[in-house]
Amino acid sequence: MTATAALAFVRQARIGHLATVDDRGRPSVVPFCFALLGEDEPVVVSALDEKPKSVADAELARVRHIRSHPEVAVIVDRYDEDWSRLAWVQIKGHARIVAPGEDGHADAITALRAKYPQYRAMAIAQRPVILIERLRITSWAATGR
Amino acid sequence: MTATAALAFVRQARIGHLATVDDRGRPSVVPFCFALLGEDEPVVVSALDEKPKSVADAELARVRHIRSHPEVAVIVDRYDEDWSRLAWVQIKGHARIVAPGEDGHADAITALRAKYPQYRAMAIAQRPVILIERLRITSWAATGR
Repeated sequence: MTATAALAFVRQARIGHLATVDDRGRPSVVPFCFALLGEDEPVVVSALDEKPKSVADAELARVRHIRSHPEVAVIVDRYDEDWSRLAWVQIKGHARIVAPGEDGHADAITALRAKYPQYRAMAIAQRPVILIERLRITSWAATGR
Repeated sequence: MTATAALAFVRQARIGHLATVDDRGRPSVVPFCFALLGEDEPVVVSALDEKPKSVADAELARVRHIRSHPEVAVIVDRYDEDWSRLAWVQIKGHARIVAPGEDGHADAITALRAKYPQYRAMAIAQRPVILIERLRITSWAATGR
């Protein structure tokens, strides 16, 4: 894929997967809703939404991992039983936790609510967001092998 | 989910995502086809299939990562625009590369070909497989929030 096509592929995806590294150097991976902002220096943003306790704990783990190991990886992909239609975009970048009121937080909330109507009724604006920047993007698409 | 339900959820999934850690301690994540074998001490197996060069390189990276950091994480999840239907199972485990002729290789190939007809015409039996064992499983399912 071209860089433009890869960004478009990421932008339209409803779900991605975020890999982080814990304080013992072991990987963790979770599905996550996200929005991609910007064109020239795109950033990925994701909310820490209200969830039942088991997920709240997993989110706390994610935040703790990012604080100790800011380098993260995101995958956005398309699965199809016709393997000539497989495609993925992998994004590596530097993540940080942005609190309400800090630069970038309001834009992230706006973008997430624009993309996901589900967020409009959820109190995500009062919670930090994850912001991933300095993106390095690689992609692959099968071509009818 | 109960442990049995979590294993059933993983078993029926057509695609998962595998997170590894590179030799600089940074995470990487890729979509992967897999099979789950066994009940009491289940293992996850995945093929290193024939792919175009760009993917072959990514697979070599995966193998290198596993050799230097055997601890991996796998996520299997269901996305739905109705967020009361979201669910995921995360598996952490110890991965190793198993060559043709070594214990577990033939069973892995058989299971992968049984699950994915696509593999039946591919020369995966001549290539190593990834075997993930000592699984630690956590799961979450939304319950109509």
